[in-house]
Amino acid sequence: LHRPLKAPPIENKVPCSLEELYKGTSKKMRITREIMDASGKSLPVEEILTIDIKPGWKKGTKITFPSKGNEQPNTVPADIVFIIDEKPHDVFKREGNDLIVTQKISLAEALTGCTVHLKTLDGRSLSVPITSIVHPGYQEVIPREGMPVPKDPSRKGNLIIKFDIKFPMRLTADQKSGLKMLLGT
Amino acid sequence: LHRPLKAPPIENKVPCSLEELYKGTSKKMRITREIMDASGKSLPVEEILTIDIKPGWKKGTKITFPSKGNEQPNTVPADIVFIIDEKPHDVFKREGNDLIVTQKISLAEALTGCTVHLKTLDGRSLSVPITSIVHPGYQEVIPREGMPVPKDPSRKGNLIIKFDIKFPMRLTADQKSGLKMLLGT
Repeated sequence: LHRPLKAPPIENKVPCSLEELYKGTSKKMRITREIMDASGKSLPVEEILTIDIKPGWKKGTKITFPSKGNEQPNTVPADIVFIIDEKPHDVFKREGNDLIVTQKISLAEALTGCTVHLKTLDGRSLSVPITSIVHPGYQEVIPREGMPVPKDPSRKGNLIIKFDIKFPMRLTADQKSGLKMLLGT
Repeated sequence: LHRPLKAPPIENKVPCSLEELYKGTSKKMRITREIMDASGKSLPVEEILTIDIKPGWKKGTKITFPSKGNEQPNTVPADIVFIIDEKPHDVFKREGNDLIVTQKISLAEALTGCTVHLKTLDGRSLSVPITSIVHPGYQEVIPREGMPVPKDPSRKGNLIIKFDIKFPMRLTADQKSGLKMLLGT
């Protein structure tokens, strides 16, 4: 007596947008597999497997459908494994449960204040007034506007705004002497 | 007939300042070792080993003095190996053959110009006028003021000046409106 062979798992990536991973979604995956009828003849069938993606799931999360591979004589069919992949986002970068956004601002805005306008991953408009002086390396942290925590989606990570301060390309002699007067040396 | 056993090499670090590695130097290392006289009696002797450090040598460079370990019956004495180590420097960081220095400047200096004064590793005074607007990430590269290239000490790496721009901690309403006028938005 020996245990029947099991075919190695079949892995498939499931590319998800950051919006899908933020809100959660359900994806239907159509697969075609060979099954054997009572007489041992194999025939192809189509199946739909539903992946229930929870808010906050991370790249690399695996969902296994046991023994959903092709049926073959004397072998246990392979597991089908779907692996969550995260598509790059135009605005946000994810670091764990935090979302990072880099905002371009002028030097004048960095020194005198500005408001950052963002669209959240669930479509809300967010206006963040920046009142501190934005020096190189400054970060504005907005709590609970990051990704949901998978084990408790009522909790969320932070949204972290980083700044890319655009300095003027050139300044006239008058501007330079004015700046020296205003800022001292 | 079999080859005599050889004791494993004895390794010692030789901490060197960046100045020593820039100019090259000679270091005398005093060692005490056991040697055997003709009758097989062992006696301690002192020896001075001279390490000739060439300009541009890097951390990890090894200098081997073969068979300078203790003499023991039926054994070839160990090699003594000196390994160059680089002590941290107050001003310069080394990256390969380049030297990196980070200069703190005020925002006014970044916008209106300044001169960086440095003392080179061989003691010269270097004045580098900065005429470009220094934005975050700006680097001034001075060719041939880096470390000597060990294989050809007439060649040298670059000196790279990075900048840490100190923004004002606070600005008055008058300063802010003046800056808006001068810099636009």
